[in-house]
Amino acid sequence: MSDRKYEREYADLGATTRSAMDIAQTSMDIVRQFVPDETLADRIRQKSVHSMGDIEFQHLISFTGCDRQGDDDDAPVRAGARAVLAEAPIVTDITMSKAGITSRGHGCRKRTAIGNGSELAEETGMTRTAASVLELDKRGVYDGAIATIGNAPTAAFALADCIENGTRPEVVVATPVGFVKAEESRERIRDVSEAYDVPAITNVGRRGGSGLAAALTNELIHVASDVRTGELELEEVDE
Amino acid sequence: MSDRKYEREYADLGATTRSAMDIAQTSMDIVRQFVPDETLADRIRQKSVHSMGDIEFQHLISFTGCDRQGDDDDAPVRAGARAVLAEAPIVTDITMSKAGITSRGHGCRKRTAIGNGSELAEETGMTRTAASVLELDKRGVYDGAIATIGNAPTAAFALADCIENGTRPEVVVATPVGFVKAEESRERIRDVSEAYDVPAITNVGRRGGSGLAAALTNELIHVASDVRTGELELEEVDE
Repeated sequence: MSDRKYEREYADLGATTRSAMDIAQTSMDIVRQFVPDETLADRIRQKSVHSMGDIEFQHLISFTGCDRQGDDDDAPVRAGARAVLAEAPIVTDITMSKAGITSRGHGCRKRTAIGNGSELAEETGMTRTAASVLELDKRGVYDGAIATIGNAPTAAFALADCIENGTRPEVVVATPVGFVKAEESRERIRDVSEAYDVPAITNVGRRGGSGLAAALTNELIHVASDVRTGELELEEVDE
Repeated sequence: MSDRKYEREYADLGATTRSAMDIAQTSMDIVRQFVPDETLADRIRQKSVHSMGDIEFQHLISFTGCDRQGDDDDAPVRAGARAVLAEAPIVTDITMSKAGITSRGHGCRKRTAIGNGSELAEETGMTRTAASVLELDKRGVYDGAIATIGNAPTAAFALADCIENGTRPEVVVATPVGFVKAEESRERIRDVSEAYDVPAITNVGRRGGSGLAAALTNELIHVASDVRTGELELEEVDE
């Protein structure tokens, strides 16, 4: 692999030096021994395994909703890559999710929801992240955005409410972790994803987290880079 | 539980509103059904389970090194809490780990290694995080610090080298995730932890990550808060 290609391939893993790129390549080589490498959805499955350090995590990833080409598992990946190419804003729930998303290889503005809507949170007692999602939605931020929720179930519930009320993110990546409402919040995202044709990548079960959400968002950026460089054509993928 | 106590208990989970505190309490109540609640080490085990959304993760946490009271599992937690009370700097490998560490309830300066040592990385081809650790160590930053490594195995290896060469962090929290050298890097930390009496909290296996590292560091802050408010006396714990 040429240095140029090398650098492109691993930029979303944070690798820029030769040593880091060697580690990133060895790591993804190991992952590909255990995860199929056929479809765009497989790339997301691979990245989930890499991010979680767990081979079986590939079976916990769910793809819902459809894009103009269909409702197959690749649909949210295509939609996400198109959104990156269109330089849609990437809106995360909290700072940790945002910090894990690469700033290289794309022109999308990264921003967090948290920090907005504090008055609403104080008035209602709802969580700060839920209030921040509702506040940004009121300003139209989630329409056409890449919505990444890595931490807060209540943010995912709030985003699902927004979608039910007409908001249309280009793609949702939702992987809140934990024992209280995390799984239910992702179920709710899947429900509105199917009901309103909003492509979404989520996981099932209790695990997840900001690192996973950032890694999957990075893979959307990575797919977009491959489209930009001509290595991949989104329209051809399912034809 | 009073509002005051409530707020203190869940501040490190990011909870400030009533709704968020309810979720945090329910969540920790669930965790405590499955994880013992006897020792300081148990608090770290509980937090690992909460952070990873996985009941079994409690069995993957390792406590090494000793403090002035002994080399029991609580030693790194006591050392970490004392370091927080002494307002030692918290030095993380990358931004994502730092972003997950609460800014409330302590006076420690938070900083990241990454961003330093870029010349060294360019010259040698080593990873940026490894170079950043070596560079900060040269400036004496890790002596007496709370060293948190959530992402980069090479940063953990570099820190272990520094410890071997005489650097003495107050405590190390190391949970790099992945398939290449992550597990080995934590083994190396445990080796120098035992050999040079540097208290360390690590996990075994391939899993881990920045979210886990941040959560465990937050629990050290939480224990320190309980000492500050008189709910807990570190010196009495093992007597």
